[in-house]
Amino acid sequence: MNLDNTPLRIKELIGNKDRLVDLFGMEILECQEGSSSVGMLVKDSHLNAADICHGGTIFALSDVAFALASNSHGRIALALDVSISYTKPVCAGAYLTARCREMQRGKKIANYVIEVEDSEGDLVALLKATSFIKDKTHFEE
Amino acid sequence: MNLDNTPLRIKELIGNKDRLVDLFGMEILECQEGSSSVGMLVKDSHLNAADICHGGTIFALSDVAFALASNSHGRIALALDVSISYTKPVCAGAYLTARCREMQRGKKIANYVIEVEDSEGDLVALLKATSFIKDKTHFEE
Amino acid sequence: MNLDNTPLRIKELIGNKDRLVDLFGMEILECQEGSSSVGMLVKDSHLNAADICHGGTIFALSDVAFALASNSHGRIALALDVSISYTKPVCAGAYLTARCREMQRGKKIANYVIEVEDSEGDLVALLKATSFIKDKTHFEE
Amino acid sequence: MNLDNTPLRIKELIGNKDRLVDLFGMEILECQEGSSSVGMLVKDSHLNAADICHGGTIFALSDVAFALASNSHGRIALALDVSISYTKPVCAGAYLTARCREMQRGKKIANYVIEVEDSEGDLVALLKATSFIKDKTHFEE
Repeated sequence: MNLDNTPLRIKELIGNKDRLVDLFGMEILECQEGSSSVGMLVKDSHLNAADICHGGTIFALSDVAFALASNSHGRIALALDVSISYTKPVCAGAYLTARCREMQRGKKIANYVIEVEDSEGDLVALLKATSFIKDKTHFEE
Repeated sequence: MNLDNTPLRIKELIGNKDRLVDLFGMEILECQEGSSSVGMLVKDSHLNAADICHGGTIFALSDVAFALASNSHGRIALALDVSISYTKPVCAGAYLTARCREMQRGKKIANYVIEVEDSEGDLVALLKATSFIKDKTHFEE
Repeated sequence: MNLDNTPLRIKELIGNKDRLVDLFGMEILECQEGSSSVGMLVKDSHLNAADICHGGTIFALSDVAFALASNSHGRIALALDVSISYTKPVCAGAYLTARCREMQRGKKIANYVIEVEDSEGDLVALLKATSFIKDKTHFEE
Repeated sequence: MNLDNTPLRIKELIGNKDRLVDLFGMEILECQEGSSSVGMLVKDSHLNAADICHGGTIFALSDVAFALASNSHGRIALALDVSISYTKPVCAGAYLTARCREMQRGKKIANYVIEVEDSEGDLVALLKATSFIKDKTHFEE
C-alpha cells in the first residue's frame, strides 16, 4: 500500500459508494490525511416544513466530510458521537461547504471539528465528532 | 385555534411539507404534545460506503421526530443543538423507529431525548436535542 | 469476585477515592448495575460570577454519577464524550440529585443518560454520556 | 461604558467572583472580545478514583474559559449546551490551559470551541459550547 495514495483512494471509495452523496447531490472537493471538504447545492428537495434547509441535510453533508477525514488514513473508522450546533438558517439555492479537520488521533479514538459555510462565507453549522478506529484497513496491504 | 388539535395539524404539516420525509420514505407514526415517533425502512439508497446505514440517515429520521415533538405545541421551534451517539450498526432491510420525548420546556428553550430502535428493539442511536422556541405560531389564531 | 457485590465495591471505591466527591461535598446515594444517583447541597463556594450554581458544579456532580454507573459492572470505563444541556438556573441552598442510567452497553462502548433535579423535582440539567470500556477490571479476579 | 474596556472588566468580575476559580486554583490568563484562556495546575485534590485528573476538573476549567469569552462583549450570556470529548488522560502535576474562541455570534445565540492542552502541548479535551445572550448587560451603561 502506498500511504501517500490512501486519501485519494478513500475519496474514490466514498465518492463511488456512499449512497447519501448521490441522494443529496454532494461533491467531494478534497480528501487529505486528516482533512476533507464536501460541497452541495441546497435544492427544494432538501428543505424542511418551514421551507429552510433541513437540519438532516446539513448533518448528512457534514457526516460525509467526517467519514472522509476519519477514514483518510486507511483504517476503518466508525462514528461514535457527533454534536451539531446550527448557527444560521439556510435557504434553497445556497451552496454549502463542509470542512472537516482532525484535532487529535489516538490508537482507538480520534476527534474532529467540522465547519459548514454558505456561499457568503458565513458559518451555518459547527460540529464536533468522535470516531472509533478499527484494526481493519479498507484495502489489502 | 383548538389546542387539542394542534399536534395533529403539526403532524399533517410536517408530513406534507418536510422534504426529507419523502426523500427517505419516512412514516410519521405519531405526534402528541411533546412526543412523537417516526419510522422508516432502511434501503440500499440509505447506506454508506461500508454498506451499513449512513449516520446521516439515522440522524435525518431522528431530526424529523425532534421537529414533530418540538413544534407540537403550535409555536415555531428551531433546532439549536443536537448530539447523537451511535450504538449499533444497522443493515439494509431493517425498520427503524425514532421516538422523541420532551424532557423540559421553558419559554425560549426546550430539551428532548430521542431513541432510535431497530426491528429487534435494540437501541441503534441515542440523541439529546435542544430547540429555540420562537414567538410565532404555525397557525393563525 | 462475587458479581452481585461489584456495584457496592465500586460505590465504596469512588466514594473513598474520587477527590471531587470531597471537594464538592457530594453524597453517593446509590450504585447498582448500570445505574446510580449522587446528591449534593449547593453552597456559596459552588457559584459562578452571576451568583448562580456554576455549570462546572452541575457537571462534576453528573460526572460522578456517570463514573459510578459506567464502572458498576467491574470493568474500568473511561469517559469519551459527554454533552450537557442546562435547563434551569440553580441557587445556593438547593439540593441537587443526579441520576444516571445505562441506555446501552456493548463490548467496548456504553451510553448513558443523566438527569439532574433540584429539591422541587425540576430538571436542571440533562446529559448524554459515552464511555469506553477497558479490558481491565477494578478488582483482582 | 468604554467598549474597549469591557473584556478587562469581565476578566476582573469573573476572576473575583467565580467561586470555582478559587476552588480549583485557576489562573485567568487572558480575556479579549470573543476569546480567552485559563490555566491551572492539576493537584491531587483534582483527581478521580483512577488517580487521573477528573473529567469534572477539566470541564470546570473549560467552563470558566467559556464564561469569559461568551460574556466578554458585556452582555450577560448563559450556557445552554456544552459537549466535551476527552482525548488524553491527565496526571497530577500537569499544567492545563483552556483556550476558548468564538466561532459565531448572533443576537441571541453564540457558539464556541474550547481546546484544553497540557504542558506538552497535547490536546487533552475538545469542547463545543452554545450560549444564550440575554438583553441585560453586566455593567450600568
